[in-house]
Amino acid sequence: MGASAEGLMRSVRTAVPGDWAAIWRIMEPVVRAGETYCWDPGMDQKAARSEWLPEAPLDTTLCVYVAVDDGVVVGTVQLHANRGGNGNHVANASFLVAGDAGGKGIARHLADHVMTEARGQGYESMQFNAVVQTNERAVALWRSLEFEVIGTVPGAFRHPVQGPTGLHIMFRRL
Amino acid sequence: MGASAEGLMRSVRTAVPGDWAAIWRIMEPVVRAGETYCWDPGMDQKAARSEWLPEAPLDTTLCVYVAVDDGVVVGTVQLHANRGGNGNHVANASFLVAGDAGGKGIARHLADHVMTEARGQGYESMQFNAVVQTNERAVALWRSLEFEVIGTVPGAFRHPVQGPTGLHIMFRRL
Repeated sequence: MGASAEGLMRSVRTAVPGDWAAIWRIMEPVVRAGETYCWDPGMDQKAARSEWLPEAPLDTTLCVYVAVDDGVVVGTVQLHANRGGNGNHVANASFLVAGDAGGKGIARHLADHVMTEARGQGYESMQFNAVVQTNERAVALWRSLEFEVIGTVPGAFRHPVQGPTGLHIMFRRL
Repeated sequence: MGASAEGLMRSVRTAVPGDWAAIWRIMEPVVRAGETYCWDPGMDQKAARSEWLPEAPLDTTLCVYVAVDDGVVVGTVQLHANRGGNGNHVANASFLVAGDAGGKGIARHLADHVMTEARGQGYESMQFNAVVQTNERAVALWRSLEFEVIGTVPGAFRHPVQGPTGLHIMFRRL
């Protein structure tokens, strides 16, 4: 029963415009906290939508997925080429999980999904450009998924609570 | 006489819309070659202009400068925040030098200028996100200007002649 019961309860699917309200409920606290992404903490909803689920993406490689748990959107992931031209075989992904849905394996589930999608789209590897060094939970999760730290840009993030910290570049082959 | 004669001959100033034709003459061969930037080698002039000298930049931190030698635009540099929000104290810069103006110290001149501008704008450091590993001349120049390689993303660039190579992340404090 386990796998199929979980399959019924939790799924990852492509985001649709009607998911925006649910995504913003997850995204807004992350924006305001300013602890994990290099976003302006004052970013308004319109700019946030352009950032995460644009109606007409400038980046034509962009795909957005949501994790749905018991009918509720509990997380979301973006997938796109990290660079263009002769660098477009490396994917990039960004993740958001609802604050009240932590510890349920949602980020890992989204990561598994997005790596499968990325392989299917022909990407050869995946890179994260700016993982906040003090975000130990995220770093540990990515390491457990075989991402390695390629390098750390010193002092590149002003954590509002912890002060200046580094930004990791993390990478794995797909 | 040396310094003032050079001062008369070569200067760096803010780019104006009328510089676009000259910039495109420098940029187009770089785009088509696809050896040093992660740009689509088929990029048309309109997309290139949006990339380098947009009329209405989405990124409000963007500044573009040109190097002028004897009245001719021989190089150009972009300066902008590498990230937003709590990462916006790190600058990013991108350089283009005319193919027939190599070996004249123009890239170094542009780099000196852009680092001075960046300091003046309050940036604390400068990061390059994707220096092609086989572009030894560029890597040597940045090293000579005290940039260090923070890490190298393996195989992240498909050099059209040399095959798969890495992309360096380079960094220095300002």
